[in-house]
Amino acid sequence: MPDAPILLKTLRSHFLGGRDVVASGLPVVEKKVVGNASARALDMNGSYSAGQLYVQEYRLAQPRHPCPVLLWHGGGMTGAQWESTPDGRQGWLWRLLQSGYDVFVADAPERGRASWAMTPQVYETAPIFRSKEEAWQLFRIGPAGGYAPAGQPRRAHPGQQFPEDAFDTFAKQFVPRWLNHDAMALDAYRLLLDLAGPCIVIGHSQGGGYATQLARECPGPIRAVVAVEPTGTPATVDGPLPPQLLVWGDHFAAHDTWQRYRAQTDAYWHALHRAGKRADVLDLPAAGIAGNSHFCMLDRNSDRIAELIVDWLNGLD
Amino acid sequence: MPDAPILLKTLRSHFLGGRDVVASGLPVVEKKVVGNASARALDMNGSYSAGQLYVQEYRLAQPRHPCPVLLWHGGGMTGAQWESTPDGRQGWLWRLLQSGYDVFVADAPERGRASWAMTPQVYETAPIFRSKEEAWQLFRIGPAGGYAPAGQPRRAHPGQQFPEDAFDTFAKQFVPRWLNHDAMALDAYRLLLDLAGPCIVIGHSQGGGYATQLARECPGPIRAVVAVEPTGTPATVDGPLPPQLLVWGDHFAAHDTWQRYRAQTDAYWHALHRAGKRADVLDLPAAGIAGNSHFCMLDRNSDRIAELIVDWLNGLD
Repeated sequence: MPDAPILLKTLRSHFLGGRDVVASGLPVVEKKVVGNASARALDMNGSYSAGQLYVQEYRLAQPRHPCPVLLWHGGGMTGAQWESTPDGRQGWLWRLLQSGYDVFVADAPERGRASWAMTPQVYETAPIFRSKEEAWQLFRIGPAGGYAPAGQPRRAHPGQQFPEDAFDTFAKQFVPRWLNHDAMALDAYRLLLDLAGPCIVIGHSQGGGYATQLARECPGPIRAVVAVEPTGTPATVDGPLPPQLLVWGDHFAAHDTWQRYRAQTDAYWHALHRAGKRADVLDLPAAGIAGNSHFCMLDRNSDRIAELIVDWLNGLD
Repeated sequence: MPDAPILLKTLRSHFLGGRDVVASGLPVVEKKVVGNASARALDMNGSYSAGQLYVQEYRLAQPRHPCPVLLWHGGGMTGAQWESTPDGRQGWLWRLLQSGYDVFVADAPERGRASWAMTPQVYETAPIFRSKEEAWQLFRIGPAGGYAPAGQPRRAHPGQQFPEDAFDTFAKQFVPRWLNHDAMALDAYRLLLDLAGPCIVIGHSQGGGYATQLARECPGPIRAVVAVEPTGTPATVDGPLPPQLLVWGDHFAAHDTWQRYRAQTDAYWHALHRAGKRADVLDLPAAGIAGNSHFCMLDRNSDRIAELIVDWLNGLD
């Protein structure tokens, strides 16, 4: 994929779904909202939208494939994870556009530009936040206790492909999330499928799990799934299913949580095989590509992995 | 501006600024984070980044102007306000790219993809939320009490240019904000000026106020300001200043809050004039363009207003 420019026909964004909610019983207070102005009444009682999804739609002047690619980020992330790598290279959004695909980049409900709603008036529970320490370990950058602030020695896994010097920049894109909002997210992603029509979904982590669930539930619009280290895959295989590619990175050995997550996902892939479905696996270390973290789209070899995925997609045509 | 395609050289995003913060003393709980997996320990104690800014950088293959345009959204909004109108047309981002400008689209700290931090451990106060009722009135779509849910009769100002049938879609892009975080936002915008170099800033509402403040503080990189209904402009005029254009919409008559905000801003523009600075005003109704809301970049005549602004910018070359 040479670094050629991209001729865009259109660039739009959309806000899809969500439900109308009403907040009431909140006190009206006088607050200074604008720096140089006097206080005004601030009344937050009223109507809101909660649970909508945000998506950017990049359309090429001359797409080379009939279906767009939908990029679905992981938990605690936003669509920004597809735009640039933390060390400043261009991300998979750009590589897919260069490969001739129209691309949709979503922010799932409650994250990024999709916005979030009042707690506890609308969302009943408090959000959860991911610390850098947890991310360092859970994203398989390095062992538990291996994170240290910039400038202090850190312990990364040997041969780590994640650009660990840029880890603190990466952590700036973490967003809060709520647990138990899967139904809200799936409702919104269904509407995105309605908008996009026949499509390919590339989903990462939680977004990969959503992609596998919706491929099972509504295989019509989803013509292929690329699930990059998905979590929350379905328990059983039913009905028609599109071709699905599972991508795994490296450094699972010391990670109990990841071994459990992976076992769940591998069990689903085995079930797909047994049912005669097309369910391919790109196990990067087994393919001779060592050292990838949970975020192979941000790792130093991200372009190489994008190529392998595009090759798989092109093989479906 | 014909609807020509855009040849992009690069598309990247950046996360700028923020400070390192530590959360401690939070209980560690066992929670089910992934749908089909067992509970895991959820420990939110640790290190976070707070106050960073997110920005998308669209670079043309053949820009026709030496300086990029930086788009700074209003309070309680994100960079999405520049991408598309609620009735599905392309926004000022696209029109500026078509006019030959490289464009940066920011999400200010704590909003959109820039993320937000724990309350009260990091941000001391609670966020504020903008209801549809408040927005309907404060954004001068219609009178106080004029909003009603979709399908029920609403009262908009006569000749309203805002696509009021799409108001509920528009409200999906509102995001929570915190008061008293102006210093945090300005710190991050200074870093954006460092990244962008010599530039034009188009800021709306709160973002227009930030643009006027930073043009006064560091006029070097800011070669021109377009302040669309800015709030929070400086109190006094000092030193060198770039050319500045102030844009006002319509429907101020019945809005006490807006009359006060406008009086503050107009006083600053008068002071600029008295000091011999270039400080132009595009009062849309006075120019024969009636009916614009607080969001002229989303109004039905948004393309026409973009043209007027581009004409003013081209006149500076």
